[in-house]
This record gives sequence, C-alpha cells and structure tokens, in this order.
Amino acid sequence: MKQFFVLTLFPEMIQQTLSHSIMGRAQKEGHISVEAINIRDYTLNKQKHVDDYPYGGGAGMVMQAQPIYDAYQSIAEKAQGARVVYMTPQGRPFTQRIAEELSQEENLVFLCGHYEGIDERIIEEIVTDEISLGDFVLTGGELAAITIIDAVSRLVPGVLGKEDSFADESFSDGLLEYPQYTRPPVFHGKEVPEILLSGHHVNIAKWRREQSLIRTVKKRPDLLETAELTAKERQFVERLQEELQETE
Amino acid sequence: MKQFFVLTLFPEMIQQTLSHSIMGRAQKEGHISVEAINIRDYTLNKQKHVDDYPYGGGAGMVMQAQPIYDAYQSIAEKAQGARVVYMTPQGRPFTQRIAEELSQEENLVFLCGHYEGIDERIIEEIVTDEISLGDFVLTGGELAAITIIDAVSRLVPGVLGKEDSFADESFSDGLLEYPQYTRPPVFHGKEVPEILLSGHHVNIAKWRREQSLIRTVKKRPDLLETAELTAKERQFVERLQEELQETE
Repeated sequence: MKQFFVLTLFPEMIQQTLSHSIMGRAQKEGHISVEAINIRDYTLNKQKHVDDYPYGGGAGMVMQAQPIYDAYQSIAEKAQGARVVYMTPQGRPFTQRIAEELSQEENLVFLCGHYEGIDERIIEEIVTDEISLGDFVLTGGELAAITIIDAVSRLVPGVLGKEDSFADESFSDGLLEYPQYTRPPVFHGKEVPEILLSGHHVNIAKWRREQSLIRTVKKRPDLLETAELTAKERQFVERLQEELQETE
Repeated sequence: MKQFFVLTLFPEMIQQTLSHSIMGRAQKEGHISVEAINIRDYTLNKQKHVDDYPYGGGAGMVMQAQPIYDAYQSIAEKAQGARVVYMTPQGRPFTQRIAEELSQEENLVFLCGHYEGIDERIIEEIVTDEISLGDFVLTGGELAAITIIDAVSRLVPGVLGKEDSFADESFSDGLLEYPQYTRPPVFHGKEVPEILLSGHHVNIAKWRREQSLIRTVKKRPDLLETAELTAKERQFVERLQEELQETE
C-alpha cells in the first residue's frame, strides 16, 4: 500500500476531495492511504497562529518554521524517511514521467504552503523535492498536492478498474489520444466514423493511430520530438506538417 | 460576480473542495459562485448509465453525448453564452496568462470527463476551449477544473485579502519569488539573512530582486526569455550563467 501524508492547514479539504470516485474507492479497498496532518495543531501560541510578518517587510504573511517542523516530526517515523515534496511554482514542472517516478515510492509526504510563502529555513531542513503543478499561482498547495496524489495513485496496481483502463490514453505512447465515440450511431445529425462500425480491427487500429498522429501534429507538435514513431509514421507526420503549412 | 458552472459526475467533490479557505470565503462573500451540475441527473435510462462501450472496441468506457448535452442545456440560459471549457490533455497547457484571460469572463462553464473519454460529437457541439492542466493524466477532469477555478478566482477583485496579497509572487514579473523569512530570527541554528533585519528598504528590495534572479537562473532559466529585465539585470544574469557553467 502506498501511504500519502499531507502537511496542511486544511486537512478536511484533503480528505473530502480524495473521498470521491476512484480515489475514494482506492482508499476503501486499501490500495492507498491518505493522512492529512493539521499544521495548526502544532503551534505553540494560544492564538493558534501559524504565520507572521515577513522579515524585511512586504505584503502578506509567511508560514513559520516551527509548527511545520513539529507537524512533520509527528509522522516522520511512520513515513520512514519518505521524500518530502513541497508544492511550489519554484519546483520541477510536474509531468507524467514524474508521476511514474513517484509511483515507485512506498510513502510520500507533501507540504502545502499558504499565504505569501513559507520560511525558507524549513524548506532547507525537511524538503527533498520541490514540484510545481505548472506556471500558474494557486491560493495554496493543497490542490497541487491532491492533483499529484491522483496522478500517482492511478498508476498504483489495482487502483484503476477495467472501466478506467489506461491502455490507450494521452501520453502513454507520447501522443494525444484518438477521438472516441459511443452510442447512438447518430447524435444531432453527426454520424460515427464508418470505419469504427466496420468490425475490421486492423483497419480500426490504423485509423486510430493516424488520428492520434494528426491531433498531435495539430495541437501539440512539441510532443512529437520524444514520441515513439516508426519510420513510416515519421514520413506521415512530415507530410502532414507540409500540408498544414501550405494551407496556412 | 463571477459564476462558474461545472458539468460533472461528482458535484459534491466540486462543492466540498471549493468550500474551504479562500475559495469558501469568496463564495460566502459573493465574489464568486460555483454551481455543480450532475450529468447523471440527465440520463434517460433507468439504470442511470452515463457511459457506453467505445465504437471500434478497446478498453474503457466512453461518456455519452446526450446526458452531457441536456446537462449543459439546463444552465445554458443562466450561463449566457459563456465559454465552455473541456479539461483534457489535448488542450492548451494552462498558464497564468490563461488564468488572467479567463478572469475577464463574466461566466464560465467547465465540462469534466471521466472513464476513457467523451463522445467526440459533444465536444464538437458545445465546447469552445480545450485546456490541459499539464502533461499528466488524472482520473477525471474535476481536479483540473477546480484548480483552474482557484487560479482564476484569486484574480477576481476582493477574493484575496491583505494577508494573501499577490504583489510579489512568482510569475507576477516573470521571475520566481525571492526567499521569505519570519520569526524567530534563529531557527535550528539557521539565521535570517542580516540584510532583512537592517531596515534599509532600498537595499532589501535590491537583495530580493537579486535573489529572484539567482533562483530563476538556477531553477527555471526558460522564464528569463520573457521576463522583464533592465539592461543591468541582463548583465547580472549573464554573469551568473557564466559562473554556473564554470562550476559545473
């Protein structure tokens, strides 16, 4: 079982959000466990403050080192030297490759910041990995941590059922996914592509692969640099790119 | 007020997750509103199924067009021709620039997929924007939609209080944020940088700007291409990059 520990000011948000759908089932079935530790429980002042003004002035408040350190200490033994991931725009941008890397770990600790930031000294002291969800700013690290827990957990064996299968999804072969269709055969006058109704599996596989290539060329050509393509597919892609340039 | 409508199979997950912290306060104070519409309420079959097998075969299930269309119709009038954002790895990668763009809209509709995908015909029919949270795969579109609602909402005037101020954060000037420190002056033997205790605001501002530049050079040099730098700062950055290359 993979254990996630989340150091946060909003433990209920972590627990509630991960109680639904596939993540809720994965916890009930014991494939993963999620423990949210409330940093505020570890303050030493009566007012339960966890932040203070930044040294050197400026707007916003900064989370103090001590409550975070003590919250971490409360699970350090259980987490057994697990990597401590701080969610920050400063970190490595999160990708499917990092999700796969993290899915190999037994335990993981996430530290979620709020307010203007976190005292730099606690980052130096306990954090092993800085990861960014992307080049945008959120109100806190919680959504970033939850998102990474979701992306990592679904790679844990047993978490995805048959109906959530991930054989043909985007990025699994470095390309975007082909278009999908289900019943009815005609919706608002739009028909399902005839080939999908043909029952000819070889042709269907070929059509889908082409659709993946076409979409990737049109929407995310940057992915083609690292995608695994045959020599024939490379030619197909080059021809497509030439055609696109001509029509522009 | 900015209104978000979310078409989803997990309306409680949307509502619960956004009921905490700054997003919860923003809703209570009327700066934003979030309405989650359960796609399952709009199925026409007794079993309340919302998905079916993919045409052409393959693993996984595909969400059907009709319940999504009817769920959308239920709010189309209220949403007044709002953009409909489908969360998909196929979309434009989400960035702070897109958050700013979306924060200008009065209303926004999000469509969250699950299972293997969504019937392509409903995407063609109602979706105006495809956005990707990043190059990774999630169990559903909900977390991506919630994350975007968070990033967009915090740009809505009134949502952030003084303590959440966003004047000096990462990306606001195209650079990573400088390190932050708060009390106590010594934590586990680590002192706050002396300059921050000097009270000399000009020197502090200069030091912080340098720290931002140093971090960006070390961690995210790609951001420097579009950051707004003075000629002097460009020189400083070039010198830093030379020094880093020498020590490698």
